[in-house]
Amino acid sequence: MTYCLAIQCQDGFVLASDSRTHAGIDQASVYGKMYRFQVGTDRILVLLAAGSLATTQALIHRIEQAMAHDEPGRSVMRSMTIFDAAQVIGQMSVEIQSQHWDALQRSGFSPEATFILAGQMSGQNPEIFLIYPQGNCIKPPPDTPFLQIGESKYGKPILSRVVHPEMSLEDAARCALVSLDSTMRSNLTVGPPIDLMLYRRDRFFPDRELRLDLQSPYYGQIQRAWSQGLRTAFDGLPRFDWET
Amino acid sequence: MTYCLAIQCQDGFVLASDSRTHAGIDQASVYGKMYRFQVGTDRILVLLAAGSLATTQALIHRIEQAMAHDEPGRSVMRSMTIFDAAQVIGQMSVEIQSQHWDALQRSGFSPEATFILAGQMSGQNPEIFLIYPQGNCIKPPPDTPFLQIGESKYGKPILSRVVHPEMSLEDAARCALVSLDSTMRSNLTVGPPIDLMLYRRDRFFPDRELRLDLQSPYYGQIQRAWSQGLRTAFDGLPRFDWET
Repeated sequence: MTYCLAIQCQDGFVLASDSRTHAGIDQASVYGKMYRFQVGTDRILVLLAAGSLATTQALIHRIEQAMAHDEPGRSVMRSMTIFDAAQVIGQMSVEIQSQHWDALQRSGFSPEATFILAGQMSGQNPEIFLIYPQGNCIKPPPDTPFLQIGESKYGKPILSRVVHPEMSLEDAARCALVSLDSTMRSNLTVGPPIDLMLYRRDRFFPDRELRLDLQSPYYGQIQRAWSQGLRTAFDGLPRFDWET
Repeated sequence: MTYCLAIQCQDGFVLASDSRTHAGIDQASVYGKMYRFQVGTDRILVLLAAGSLATTQALIHRIEQAMAHDEPGRSVMRSMTIFDAAQVIGQMSVEIQSQHWDALQRSGFSPEATFILAGQMSGQNPEIFLIYPQGNCIKPPPDTPFLQIGESKYGKPILSRVVHPEMSLEDAARCALVSLDSTMRSNLTVGPPIDLMLYRRDRFFPDRELRLDLQSPYYGQIQRAWSQGLRTAFDGLPRFDWET
C-alpha cells in the first residue's frame, strides 16, 4: 500500500509520500513515490503515485519518452495548463493499464494506479489534480485544499481539521507529516522514509526537498510533540457530570 | 455504513455506536446498533452490529427466540462463557446469511454483517469479542484492548494512541466519543445520535447509558475542547530549522 498527499496553499503547494512497496508480505522494498520531471525553467511538474508499481514505472517511462521525442499532444512540455498535462497523463495511464488488463485479471491482480499531479506553469497559479485510474481528474475543494491517494483514511481527520487555503507552506508540511505519521502507526504497509517537498509559487523549482526517516531528528521531534499534544488535549476534555 | 467500537478496561467496558443506516443515498434512517439482551441478573450480553441490517434484525430475532424457547445449544442464557455465546451467535449469523446469499449475490448485494459481543458472566471477567461474518471470533490485543467494526479507519489513530488497559471507564468513554466524532466528520454515512454505554464489572447492568446528538451539551463541549486541543497541539509542533 501507499499513502501520498498534496496540500495547496496560497504560497504554493506541499507534497508528501511514504516509500513502502510490497508484493506479498515478503517482498517489501523502499521505492520513492514522488517523481519530478525536468521540464525547464518556466514550469514544474511533480507526480505522486499509488497503486500498481508496474503501471507507475511504465507511465514515468512513457512521459519521459514523449518529452524526449517532443511528441505533439503527448509531451507535457507542450501542455498549456496543468489540467492539460493531467489529461495527457491520465490517457497514458489508461493505455498502459489496458495493455496488461486481461492477463492481470486472470491472475487476480489489478493494473490500476491513481496519481496526484502538482505543478505550475509560468503566468498561471500552482495547481494540484487527482488523476483516477480511469484517466479523469479532479481539483481539491477550495476550502479544504488537499488531495490524498492510497491508504488515506487514517490520516484524513487531521487534514480536515487543520488545512485551510491561507496556511503557510511550513504549517502545511507539518500537517502532512502528522497525517503520514498517524497512517504509518495504523497500517504496516505504509512506511518510512517520508519524501516531503515544499514548492513556493513562481520559483519553478522545489523550495525544499526532504527525506525523513525514523532516525531523522526533526521527525522524532514532531512525533514526540504531537503525541504529547494529543495527550494534553485528551486530558483536557470536559468530565461527565457524574464525575465531579 | 456504520461505526461501532468497544474498549475493554480493568473496570469493565465501554461501547459506542453511531445510528445512521442507509440503502442508497435517499433512504437514510436512524437505527440504534446496540442491542442489550435480557439475560437475567448474573450475566450481561450486549451486541453491536455493522453490515446488513436485514441480517442483523434476523439475528436479534433468532437470539431472542432461542432464549424464549430455552433451546439447548442455542440460547445464550445457557452459554457458560462469553466466548461460548460468541460462537453461538456467529453460527446463527452464518445460517441467516446463507439463507439469502444466492438471491442477494445475484442482485449485487451482500448479506454479510460483523458484530462485537461484549458481556460478563458471574464469576468471570468482562470480555469483548469481534464476530466475523464467517462466524469465527477474536478478542482484542491485551495492550490496546479495543475492537472496531464498520468504518473504522478514521477513528483508529486516537484509539491506538490513547487506549490502555488501566484507563478509567470515563476516559475510555471520552476516547470513544472523540473517535466517533472524527469518523462522523470524515464520512457522511456515519451519523448521530451516538449510543454510549459504560459497564462496570460485576454489576450485570449498564452503569451509564447515554444517547448523544449534535445538540447534546456534553457532546458539544467535547467537540469544542478537542478541536481547540488539536489546534494547540498543532501550533506547538517544532519549527523547521530554516524557519527561525
